[in-house]
Amino acid sequence: MEVEILVIGNEILIGKTLDTNSNWLAKRIAKYGHRLKRITVIEDDIGIISRTLQTILERKPDMIFTTGGLGPTFDDMTLAGIAEGLKRELELNQHAYNSIKRAYEHAYKRGILKLEGMTKEREKMSYLPQGSIPLPNIRGTAPGVKLKEGETSIFILPGVPSEMKAIFLNVIKPLLKEKRGNFIEKGLFFMGIGESQIAPYVTKLEKKYPKLWIKTHPRIGLSLEVEISITGFNVENGDEIAERVLNEIREIILSLDGRIRERK
Amino acid sequence: MEVEILVIGNEILIGKTLDTNSNWLAKRIAKYGHRLKRITVIEDDIGIISRTLQTILERKPDMIFTTGGLGPTFDDMTLAGIAEGLKRELELNQHAYNSIKRAYEHAYKRGILKLEGMTKEREKMSYLPQGSIPLPNIRGTAPGVKLKEGETSIFILPGVPSEMKAIFLNVIKPLLKEKRGNFIEKGLFFMGIGESQIAPYVTKLEKKYPKLWIKTHPRIGLSLEVEISITGFNVENGDEIAERVLNEIREIILSLDGRIRERK
Repeated sequence: MEVEILVIGNEILIGKTLDTNSNWLAKRIAKYGHRLKRITVIEDDIGIISRTLQTILERKPDMIFTTGGLGPTFDDMTLAGIAEGLKRELELNQHAYNSIKRAYEHAYKRGILKLEGMTKEREKMSYLPQGSIPLPNIRGTAPGVKLKEGETSIFILPGVPSEMKAIFLNVIKPLLKEKRGNFIEKGLFFMGIGESQIAPYVTKLEKKYPKLWIKTHPRIGLSLEVEISITGFNVENGDEIAERVLNEIREIILSLDGRIRERK
Repeated sequence: MEVEILVIGNEILIGKTLDTNSNWLAKRIAKYGHRLKRITVIEDDIGIISRTLQTILERKPDMIFTTGGLGPTFDDMTLAGIAEGLKRELELNQHAYNSIKRAYEHAYKRGILKLEGMTKEREKMSYLPQGSIPLPNIRGTAPGVKLKEGETSIFILPGVPSEMKAIFLNVIKPLLKEKRGNFIEKGLFFMGIGESQIAPYVTKLEKKYPKLWIKTHPRIGLSLEVEISITGFNVENGDEIAERVLNEIREIILSLDGRIRERK
């Protein structure tokens, strides 16, 4: 499956918050053999959310994950933006309403919050685009949302990492596992020879194994230590082939008088 | 000025690498009063780089920063992608060639690298889109690149953080300072009352001060601690006004029986 992530939040764009959610999701998307094609980070703005969603949908990914902008305040505009982008109305979702109400009752009883009952702002979180399925949020109040547009499944997730992760693990991970593909990731580190010295050999290997990405990552300026990684999606006998490539790389490095540090 | 960041690299999209460059740049763009409108992360693919650059240019930002994909290997496709997107040829840039040659000579003499002289792969880094100005890379070999397309300045930066930062500090920071705007960022933390309880007051303040963004950030699920931040670009007497808003917020929190933790 092909996936895109849409991150919504001014706090990322002013550098106040480092977006760790996308990396956490990216690892898991790859792990189950799916391909994250793009991450887009935008401001809290209904028009921008709406237009960006439409552009993503034109690329027809199988799944879109959005993070952020689901809270009770005025600047949480994700649901309104998504609704506009899909040309759907926001409507009160009774399941979402009940779960939000329960969460606030619980927090009130435990003395965490001092304001009892539903308010306009709390209710706001239960207005979802038509056709939404709310996804329970056991770590917070705003539920996640699942939507379908054409062949694309849209998952709208909170920005708070613990809440995002809980919903992902409950709802999305099983789907990624069900449609599981094969993802290969192998590699090693080398020293003593530079990225540019091994480059022609890598090019040859890439031509020999066109379904694999063979990439070098300099870890320190001027290539004092370089990581080489082999990755690929849904390559038949991928693990075996990648191991063979890695052996060829080991031989090349040693023949060039380089040193190898294996991954732990 | 309005800025966009374009991050190029499969390693980000498979979750292998956490993109910290964008956050580092975002902080500095905001600090000098400029507005980062969007971050886009894409694969190493000439067609995708080319089309995405064209889409960004349609939004007419003042500056675009790209990171990643400048190295000597086959999968480093940024320059080819940018050239295609701008419909310009790649041509040997003598300044870039000389600086790359010097960097490799230096590394060879110091015994860091074992291969002397220029190779096809090393030369590749000196083929720049027509109209490029190379930006010296004191921390590595691949130079950065400055380009102009219409009213937009494009800065092509390496993905290795130390190299990206060195070029930014030398070349881009002075430009951001020269056209400096005013960025305000103030805030505090509160406990004992939730995001949803303060939400109607925040909405009123946002209507009263429409040029400021007043945002709450729950730090723990169920709003045990919430940060409230006030940010704004180029607001006249912005610091003074933001301090006034912060005082109003302090009064609101105390009147609701909440507790305040000031920023250090």
